[in-house]
Amino acid sequence: MKVALDALGGDLAPAEPVKGALLAAEEFGVDVILVGPTAVIEQELAKYPANNRISIVEAPDEIKMAEDEVVKAVRSKPRASINVAMKLVKDGVADAMVSAGNTGAVMASAFFVLGRIPGIERPALSTLIPFNAGRVFLLDAGANADCRPSHLLQFAKMGAAYSREVVGVSNPRVALLNTGEESGKGNETIAEAYELLSQSDLNFIGNIEGQNVHKGLCDVVVSDGFTGNVALKVGEGMADYILQQVRSVIRSSILYAPAAMLLKPALRRALKSLQYEEYGGGNLLGVNGVVVIAHGRSDAIAIKNALRVANASAASDLMVKMREIFAQPSASSSAAGR
Amino acid sequence: MKVALDALGGDLAPAEPVKGALLAAEEFGVDVILVGPTAVIEQELAKYPANNRISIVEAPDEIKMAEDEVVKAVRSKPRASINVAMKLVKDGVADAMVSAGNTGAVMASAFFVLGRIPGIERPALSTLIPFNAGRVFLLDAGANADCRPSHLLQFAKMGAAYSREVVGVSNPRVALLNTGEESGKGNETIAEAYELLSQSDLNFIGNIEGQNVHKGLCDVVVSDGFTGNVALKVGEGMADYILQQVRSVIRSSILYAPAAMLLKPALRRALKSLQYEEYGGGNLLGVNGVVVIAHGRSDAIAIKNALRVANASAASDLMVKMREIFAQPSASSSAAGR
Repeated sequence: MKVALDALGGDLAPAEPVKGALLAAEEFGVDVILVGPTAVIEQELAKYPANNRISIVEAPDEIKMAEDEVVKAVRSKPRASINVAMKLVKDGVADAMVSAGNTGAVMASAFFVLGRIPGIERPALSTLIPFNAGRVFLLDAGANADCRPSHLLQFAKMGAAYSREVVGVSNPRVALLNTGEESGKGNETIAEAYELLSQSDLNFIGNIEGQNVHKGLCDVVVSDGFTGNVALKVGEGMADYILQQVRSVIRSSILYAPAAMLLKPALRRALKSLQYEEYGGGNLLGVNGVVVIAHGRSDAIAIKNALRVANASAASDLMVKMREIFAQPSASSSAAGR
Repeated sequence: MKVALDALGGDLAPAEPVKGALLAAEEFGVDVILVGPTAVIEQELAKYPANNRISIVEAPDEIKMAEDEVVKAVRSKPRASINVAMKLVKDGVADAMVSAGNTGAVMASAFFVLGRIPGIERPALSTLIPFNAGRVFLLDAGANADCRPSHLLQFAKMGAAYSREVVGVSNPRVALLNTGEESGKGNETIAEAYELLSQSDLNFIGNIEGQNVHKGLCDVVVSDGFTGNVALKVGEGMADYILQQVRSVIRSSILYAPAAMLLKPALRRALKSLQYEEYGGGNLLGVNGVVVIAHGRSDAIAIKNALRVANASAASDLMVKMREIFAQPSASSSAAGR
């Protein structure tokens, strides 16, 4: 598998993406096409021993992380690294692309260059929910702020396909993120989505409340992009808050230092599942190609893992199955009721 | 101040509410009216020394925690403890009421018995967000799943009034829970609410993302009830997950036991702000009286603190100010644009 990597994407580009590409090539045998200004990439590559799994495709332009008018930037810069990497996927030169760049820009580029899979109304961003004994994915993590019930049904189908084909869960349990467990709970959109999911052929296990998403009770959590994004970030904020509280108490007395030192590696291990570096990135599901969006703060480890995710997605039957699922008339939104 | 306490509310009733009432009477000098079946309450009270701040008002009926048709139950059982306690507030016998019972039932009872403050379209549930160096409140925490922008403006005004009158913040900073910091972010409702908040006379500081709500950057976080409820619960779930991970690593080797023992009190202190027992309950703002809803799992400490919150709210100018704010024509929803 060949994965195109946006060498200019993320706060730590180009140094960390280039390093991450080399790590992925070494550890996972991924062939990586670094996309960006050749001279800049070569300068970074010169710091490491040569690796014949790494190649370069020139892209002189950049879409900045803080770019204001993202869609306009994507349209007006065809030679920006994100667009060039996306084009490599479209042309079959690469099997997948990874970027830690501006999320809105990656999504816009994916829509323009790759387009949607026929039958899918809204591509959605999936993300891993930390859970020690498995892999639970939530979607939509933020691609669509306003959703209709039929969109949520499509997210559920895409999430289940991902869980089955890439994660390897044979009959993924799908749950709807809601304020209560009973049917009829939640806002109007969610209550209607519940009905659609109940009538679908998915393994729909009902509503799940926020306090239960980290318990591994389901494999796919479905949410609109607004609620999903806010909830994930509040969870992140809570984790940061707890760690900061613990740190400040431990630092409040030197008496705690030896005990803290002893426990540190264990605690670090315990909290490994919380680090986004470990899972790398989330798939943008529903576009015509494998696109993995990594965290803007991605370091080399995060990029390496995002490349692993992209490689595994490209090597799986995900795209074929997604096209099959949404080609069936029963999966179309009109048949789904709304 | 006299506070009516639903003696039958919560998973641990009547034992913990009765004990909590005695603690609040002792520690804070709150006069508590225990509302429920007299014989049951007297039996619990008999376990403790007499306290002349405690009185009983008979209410033979109960609305169960798991009651299916909440609104119907509230309407058909006028002598249920929740309704009787609410009536005491309406009649001026009590200055506030507290219940750890079925949240939907307490809200329904408050609407029927007390009614809304004129000018307020939708009462909202406020809750404390854990933050070590202050008191940040979020509303709506779950009373209204579907909200219009004008409702969010009203939530902001109620939250600011609460922060000012009860918490004592002189010019409360109000923020809108959103997926990004820039204006225009979020779903349609939130983007419109941003405009209304910008045009209001509130100290509106803009959008706040979920990862920042625990940092004390604002005093009031405004959200629709669906997103707010889901996000708070995902935060809770994250906290539980982290603590469980830490516990399991520490238990994985006896070598960690001495260090863990040494750190335990410090960690407990660090995480005290996460315990709902410490803040007791959230105010149902917008109804014609002080109503505090405590967690269903409330123990005596949580009830004691909920009584403290109710007492402080009743002793403040909150109700007077709320009536003033919403009596002004500029605060009415029609003038607010939608």
